[in-house]
Amino acid sequence: MGMVGGGEGAFIGAIHRIAANIDGEIELVCGAFSSSADRSKVSGKALYLPANRVYNNYRDMMQNEKALPEEQRMQFVAIVTPNYLHFPIAKAALEAGFHVLSDKPATFNLQEALDLRRLVDQTGLLYGLTYTYTGYPLIKEAKARIADGELGNIRKVVVEYPQGWLADRQEDQHNKQAAWRLDPKQAGISSCMGDIGVHAANLAEYVSGLKITEICADLTTFVEDRDLDDDGSILLRFEGGAKGILFSSQISIGDENALHIRIYGDKGSLEWHQQEPNTLWLKWGDKPTEMLRTGGDYLGVMATLATRTPMGHPEGYLEAFANIYAAFSGQIRARANGQQFDLQTADCPGINEAVRGMAFIELAVTASASDKKWHTFKQH
Amino acid sequence: MGMVGGGEGAFIGAIHRIAANIDGEIELVCGAFSSSADRSKVSGKALYLPANRVYNNYRDMMQNEKALPEEQRMQFVAIVTPNYLHFPIAKAALEAGFHVLSDKPATFNLQEALDLRRLVDQTGLLYGLTYTYTGYPLIKEAKARIADGELGNIRKVVVEYPQGWLADRQEDQHNKQAAWRLDPKQAGISSCMGDIGVHAANLAEYVSGLKITEICADLTTFVEDRDLDDDGSILLRFEGGAKGILFSSQISIGDENALHIRIYGDKGSLEWHQQEPNTLWLKWGDKPTEMLRTGGDYLGVMATLATRTPMGHPEGYLEAFANIYAAFSGQIRARANGQQFDLQTADCPGINEAVRGMAFIELAVTASASDKKWHTFKQH
Amino acid sequence: MGMVGGGEGAFIGAIHRIAANIDGEIELVCGAFSSSADRSKVSGKALYLPANRVYNNYRDMMQNEKALPEEQRMQFVAIVTPNYLHFPIAKAALEAGFHVLSDKPATFNLQEALDLRRLVDQTGLLYGLTYTYTGYPLIKEAKARIADGELGNIRKVVVEYPQGWLADRQEDQHNKQAAWRLDPKQAGISSCMGDIGVHAANLAEYVSGLKITEICADLTTFVEDRDLDDDGSILLRFEGGAKGILFSSQISIGDENALHIRIYGDKGSLEWHQQEPNTLWLKWGDKPTEMLRTGGDYLGVMATLATRTPMGHPEGYLEAFANIYAAFSGQIRARANGQQFDLQTADCPGINEAVRGMAFIELAVTASASDKKWHTFKQH
Amino acid sequence: MGMVGGGEGAFIGAIHRIAANIDGEIELVCGAFSSSADRSKVSGKALYLPANRVYNNYRDMMQNEKALPEEQRMQFVAIVTPNYLHFPIAKAALEAGFHVLSDKPATFNLQEALDLRRLVDQTGLLYGLTYTYTGYPLIKEAKARIADGELGNIRKVVVEYPQGWLADRQEDQHNKQAAWRLDPKQAGISSCMGDIGVHAANLAEYVSGLKITEICADLTTFVEDRDLDDDGSILLRFEGGAKGILFSSQISIGDENALHIRIYGDKGSLEWHQQEPNTLWLKWGDKPTEMLRTGGDYLGVMATLATRTPMGHPEGYLEAFANIYAAFSGQIRARANGQQFDLQTADCPGINEAVRGMAFIELAVTASASDKKWHTFKQH
Repeated sequence: MGMVGGGEGAFIGAIHRIAANIDGEIELVCGAFSSSADRSKVSGKALYLPANRVYNNYRDMMQNEKALPEEQRMQFVAIVTPNYLHFPIAKAALEAGFHVLSDKPATFNLQEALDLRRLVDQTGLLYGLTYTYTGYPLIKEAKARIADGELGNIRKVVVEYPQGWLADRQEDQHNKQAAWRLDPKQAGISSCMGDIGVHAANLAEYVSGLKITEICADLTTFVEDRDLDDDGSILLRFEGGAKGILFSSQISIGDENALHIRIYGDKGSLEWHQQEPNTLWLKWGDKPTEMLRTGGDYLGVMATLATRTPMGHPEGYLEAFANIYAAFSGQIRARANGQQFDLQTADCPGINEAVRGMAFIELAVTASASDKKWHTFKQH
Repeated sequence: MGMVGGGEGAFIGAIHRIAANIDGEIELVCGAFSSSADRSKVSGKALYLPANRVYNNYRDMMQNEKALPEEQRMQFVAIVTPNYLHFPIAKAALEAGFHVLSDKPATFNLQEALDLRRLVDQTGLLYGLTYTYTGYPLIKEAKARIADGELGNIRKVVVEYPQGWLADRQEDQHNKQAAWRLDPKQAGISSCMGDIGVHAANLAEYVSGLKITEICADLTTFVEDRDLDDDGSILLRFEGGAKGILFSSQISIGDENALHIRIYGDKGSLEWHQQEPNTLWLKWGDKPTEMLRTGGDYLGVMATLATRTPMGHPEGYLEAFANIYAAFSGQIRARANGQQFDLQTADCPGINEAVRGMAFIELAVTASASDKKWHTFKQH
Repeated sequence: MGMVGGGEGAFIGAIHRIAANIDGEIELVCGAFSSSADRSKVSGKALYLPANRVYNNYRDMMQNEKALPEEQRMQFVAIVTPNYLHFPIAKAALEAGFHVLSDKPATFNLQEALDLRRLVDQTGLLYGLTYTYTGYPLIKEAKARIADGELGNIRKVVVEYPQGWLADRQEDQHNKQAAWRLDPKQAGISSCMGDIGVHAANLAEYVSGLKITEICADLTTFVEDRDLDDDGSILLRFEGGAKGILFSSQISIGDENALHIRIYGDKGSLEWHQQEPNTLWLKWGDKPTEMLRTGGDYLGVMATLATRTPMGHPEGYLEAFANIYAAFSGQIRARANGQQFDLQTADCPGINEAVRGMAFIELAVTASASDKKWHTFKQH
Repeated sequence: MGMVGGGEGAFIGAIHRIAANIDGEIELVCGAFSSSADRSKVSGKALYLPANRVYNNYRDMMQNEKALPEEQRMQFVAIVTPNYLHFPIAKAALEAGFHVLSDKPATFNLQEALDLRRLVDQTGLLYGLTYTYTGYPLIKEAKARIADGELGNIRKVVVEYPQGWLADRQEDQHNKQAAWRLDPKQAGISSCMGDIGVHAANLAEYVSGLKITEICADLTTFVEDRDLDDDGSILLRFEGGAKGILFSSQISIGDENALHIRIYGDKGSLEWHQQEPNTLWLKWGDKPTEMLRTGGDYLGVMATLATRTPMGHPEGYLEAFANIYAAFSGQIRARANGQQFDLQTADCPGINEAVRGMAFIELAVTASASDKKWHTFKQH
C-alpha cells in the first residue's frame, strides 16, 4: 500500500501502519507523509522506504506509482490526513486507478461524499472506510445475534461516545490533533459529531441492522471561542419503530474513548463497551445475564474469524483496526483473483457508509439549529 | 407512626416498615393496611398491632387516632398506596393534624400536588416524600462535592433509569405491582415517567444543585395494548447552561433497577450507579480517576452521618430508605422540641420536590406529544 | 432479647441491634451494655429501655431477668463483647436458662468452646453464632448449587479475606476496636485468624459442604511490637481430595472487607465477593459465564427466602446479619411452639461451628509455628 | 529474524510473528517451521518466504544462514517449539553465531538452563526470553512505582494464574497444545508450573523487585491419568521479609488467562489483572483508591514508551508481546551500533530469568513432594 499523510507526530498514521503490519499480508511500499516534502522524506526514511518511493505530495505519488510496472506499484492508497483532504486525495487515487482505504469521516461534506460515490461507481475500484469499531470480534457477534433474531424485535438503541480530551482549550496548547479537529476549514462543520458521533451512529446501525430514520438533536459548544460543537445529545428513531439515544461528547472529563452500546429487543438485550472490548453482555428476562468473551467456543463464525489470540489474551483497538485492513486487503485479493468476496472480506465499511456518515453529520448540525423536533434522515 | 396501605403482598409497605425499624427510633402503632378491612386486620395482626389500632380504612384511622391522648396517638402517617390515593390520604391526615411521609409520586396529578402544598402551608405540618435514592451516602457526597465547586461549572448531566420488568405484559400475569402502575386510573398519566423517570429527574436536580429549565421528550409505549408509556428519552436543559439526557425505561430487558448518574463539570466529573451504591467515581483530566467508597475517612459530614457500617460492609437500598425515615422523624422530633432542623434532618425531600415531580411528569407527557422541540419547565 | 456489651462507641453492638430490628420480630428488652455501669445506663437510656432493665453487669442481668415473669423476661441473650468475655457470659446465660446468640469467635480458646458445647448439650438451650457472611442470599445459592452437584466434584477452594485497617499501629491511636483485637488478653492467641480468618474458613466449609482436613500455615506479624498475627496464608486440604488456599490479612492497605470466595469443581466454578454481594458468578467450560443476581426468579428457595427487596435494590451486610437473627429467633419460636425447625430456621451457625472455629484458630497458630508441613484438622 | 517452530496450527508461532510485525522493525527472513519438512515448506510459503529460506530443520537453517552474506542472513532466531527443543535449538543458534529469542520456559530442565547460560556467556551473544506479561505498560508502571518507594516496604505479594482449559482431558481430543504440555517428554517435569506458574513467579519478582527466597508447595494432578501437575498452590517468602502466595491452575473452569497480581507495602498497595491490562489500581489507607490507565499523562517513562495508542484505545496481549520483541531487537541494533542499551531496550527478560525460571519449576516440584515445609530457592 501507499500512504498519504501519517508522518511523524500524527497519531492515526502510526495506527494505520500497525494495523496494516499485524498480519504480515500488507506491505507499505510508498507514501507522501506530509504536506511538507521534507517531513515526508524524514518519515519515509524512518519507515525504511527507498527514497524514490517517498513523494513530496500525493499528486506526485499517484502519477509516479501509476507509471511503475504493475507488480511493483502500490495496490491501494491509505488516506490518513485531516478531513478536508480526504476527498481530493481519494479522487486523485481513484482517477489514477488505485483502490482507496480512507480514514473517517469520509469527506469534508456530504456533497463530496456523493461525488466520491459517483467516482467509485464509475471506476469500479474498491473503497473502504475505517469505522474501526466494527472490527471488534464481539461487535460482529452482537450483530450476528441480532440478525439471528436472538433479541427479538429491536426496541431501543442507546449508544454513547464520550471523550474528555477537549474539555479545555487543547487547541491552544500545541495539540495538533485538537487544532485541526476544531478548525472548520480542516474538519468540516462539526467536531464532536464529525469525529466521534459519526462512529456511534455507524455502530448503532451496524450492530442493530436498522437504519436511523429521524433525529432530534441538541449540539453544544461548551468551551468558549470554539467554532464547532464539542458535545451532542440526539434522540433517534429507527426503521421498524425502534427508538434510541446517541450521546457523544469531547468535554466529558475523565472519559477516555468510552464508546458504549446497548440494544434492547423484546426477547433480550445486549451491551458492549469499547474500553473492555472482549466482553459482550447478553441480558435476558428470565435467566441470568451471560458474559460472552472474545475467543469463546460458543461464538459465531464472524467473531471467531476476527480473533487472533485465545480467550483471556486480550485483543484491543489495533487488532480491531487490523480487521478492517484484513477485510479490505482481502477484497483486493479476491478482486485480483476474480473471486467473490467471502463473508469476512465483505464485512468492511465502504462507500455507502461513507455517504451515510456525512449525511448524518450534516443532519445533526441542521437539526440542532432547528426549532423543529424531528428531522428525517434521508437515504442519499 | 401509622401506615396506610402496605398490607400483605404489597412490595413497598414492607420496605417502608424495614426502613422505619432499622434505627429503633420509630414505632409502628397503627394502620389501615388495605382497601379490604379483612386484609387490613390480617396484616395488622401479623405486625403485632393491637386490634383496636388496626383500622378498616384511612378515614377511621385519622378520626380515631386524633381522638387518642397525644402521647398515645401516632405522630405521622406513612402513605404506601397506589398513586391515586396519595392525595386524599395525605389531605385527611393533614386535616386531622398528622404529619405525612408519602411514597412518590406525590399525587395523581400536578393540580393535586399544588393543592397539597397549599394544605401543608396552611396546616404548618411536616410533609416528606420518599425519593429514596437521595438517601444514599455517596449521593450526599456527590451533591456536596458539586456544591463545593470541586467539579467546577456543571456542563452535562446524564441520568438513566432503565428497568426491564415490564418488557412483556406482566399486568396480565397476576403481577399486582405491574397492574396498577399501568392503569391510568390508579397511576396517573404516565407509567415509566411517573414511576421511575421522576426519581431520575429528582436525582439529577438534587445532586447537581441545578433546576431543569427545558425538556424535549420522546415517550413510547412499546408493549402493545398499554395505555401508558413504558419508555422515555428526554433531552434536558438546566439553569446555568448545563445540558443533559434522561433515559428511563421499563422495557430494558435484563436491567434491574439501573439508576445511574454522571455529571460533568469543567474541572471534573462524577459517576454513580445505584446497583453498586457504595462506590462513587471522581474523574479528572490530569490525574487518575478516584474511587470513593462508603465509609471512607475522606468523605464529608453528610455522607458520614448517613452511614451505619464500616467501609467494605456494603449498605444498600434499605439503609438509604431508612435515611429518609431518619431525617423525617428527626424533623418531627426537632419540631416537637422547638429546635431548628440540623443539616442531616433538613436533608429530606418535601413538598417542593413533590410539586416539582408532578410537574415533571405532566411536562414529559405534554412535550412528548408535541411537535415543538423545547418545552419550558415552569416553576410552580 | 437482652444484650451484653455493645454500648455507645462499640461498632458491633449497633450492628446487632439493627439486624435484630429490621424485621420487626425481635424486641430489645434489657441489657448490660458496658463494663462500666454508668456507661451501660447511658446506653440503655439512649435505647429507650426502662431504667430497671438496664443492668450494671451481665450477672445482675441474668439473675434479675430470670426472676421476671416468663412473658416479660428476655428470651435470649445477644453477646457482643470482646472475645474473652464470650464464654463466661454465655455460660451465665445458659445456666440462667436463656438461649444465646453470640458474636464470633465463639470463645477465648478451644477448651472454652468444648466446655460451652457441653453446657449447650446439658441445658438443651439454643446457641447461635453470627458468622454473618453465611446470611447473604447468594451465599445460600452458592451452597445450594454445590449441594445439588451443579459444579460436580469440588477440586479447589480459594477463599480470601484481606483488610487493610491494621496496616499501621491503630491500636495506639485511640482505636478501641484495634486495641482489643490486638491484645492477647482480650482477643486470644490470634488477631487476623481469630477475627477474620475464622470467617473465611467457615465460609469455605459452609459453601463447599466440605470439611477442612489438613492445613499448612504461615502467619505473620508485620507491624512491629505486636503480640498477635496480622496476616496469614494457609494451604488447605479438604475431605474428598479438594485443595485450597486461605488468605487473610489485616495489613492489606486499601482492602476494606474483601472477603472473596472461589470454588472450582470438575463441571463448573463459582465466585462471590462480599463487597458486591448481590452478584454470584457461575463459570462453565463450554458456555458463557453467568451472572446471578439477588432477587432473580431463577434462584433457589433458600436465597429467595433470605431476600427482602426486588432485584436491583441492593441488599447488604445488615440484611445478611438480619438473616442470622431471623433464623435464630425462628428457632426460638419453633422451640416455643414445639415445632421442628424448617429449612430456613435451621440454617443458622451454631455450637458445632463454634467449636470448629476455635479449633481452626488454634490449629492455624500451631501449624504456623511448626516446621512440619501438614497438620491435621481434628474433629472435636 | 528466523523462526524455528510455529508452523500452521501452532498457537504461539503466529503470536510471535504478529508481535514481530507490529512495529515494522523486524522482518521474518527464514524459518524451519515444523519437524516435518513438508509442513515447514507449506508454512514458509504461506508466509511469503522464498523457498530457499524455508528449511527442513533447524540444523540446516543455522548452517545455511551462517553461510549467507552478513547483510542477507537472519540476525536472530525466534524459538517457538515445545519445551524439550528449546535448548538444542538455542545451542545450535548460539554456536552458529545467532542471537536467540526463546519462548518460555527456557529449557527442558535446570541443568540445560545452566548450560545455556554458560554458552551465552561464552559466545557473548544476546539471549531474550518471552515473559510476555512484563511487556504490559502498566506492569512497567507498577514496577516503577514500587522501585520509587511509593508503596513503602513490601509486605505481601499475591500472584495468581488460573486457567481452566485443561479441566478435562483435552489431550485426548486432538488438542495439540494440550497434548505436548502434558507429556513429560516434551514439557518437562511440570505442566501447570512449567507453563504458567513460571510466568507468575517471574511477574512477582519483576514487579516487586524482590527475589523469592523460600517456598512451600502443594502441586496436584486433578485430572486422572495425567503424569504432570495441573494445579498448584505455593507459599512464598521473599528477601527483606515479604511473604506471598502463588496460585496457578489449569483446571479452574471458566478462568481464561487470569493472571492477577497484588502487592502490598506499608504505605500502599497495587493490583493488576492481565485480562483488563489497561487498568492499574493504587490503593491507599487514607485516600481513595486510584485507577491508573494505559496512556495516562501521569504515567512514568517506561509505561509511556511501551504504549502505542492514546488512552481508551485498549492495548492487549499482542502489544505486550511486541514490546518484548521491540526491546530485544533494540538490543541487537544497539549492539550492532556499538551503543549501550537504553532503559527501554534493557528491559527484556534474559538468561538470568531463564535460569531462575527453570530453578523455580524444579523447586516447586521438589518442595511439593516433600514433607518439609520450607525449601530454599537457591541462587544459581
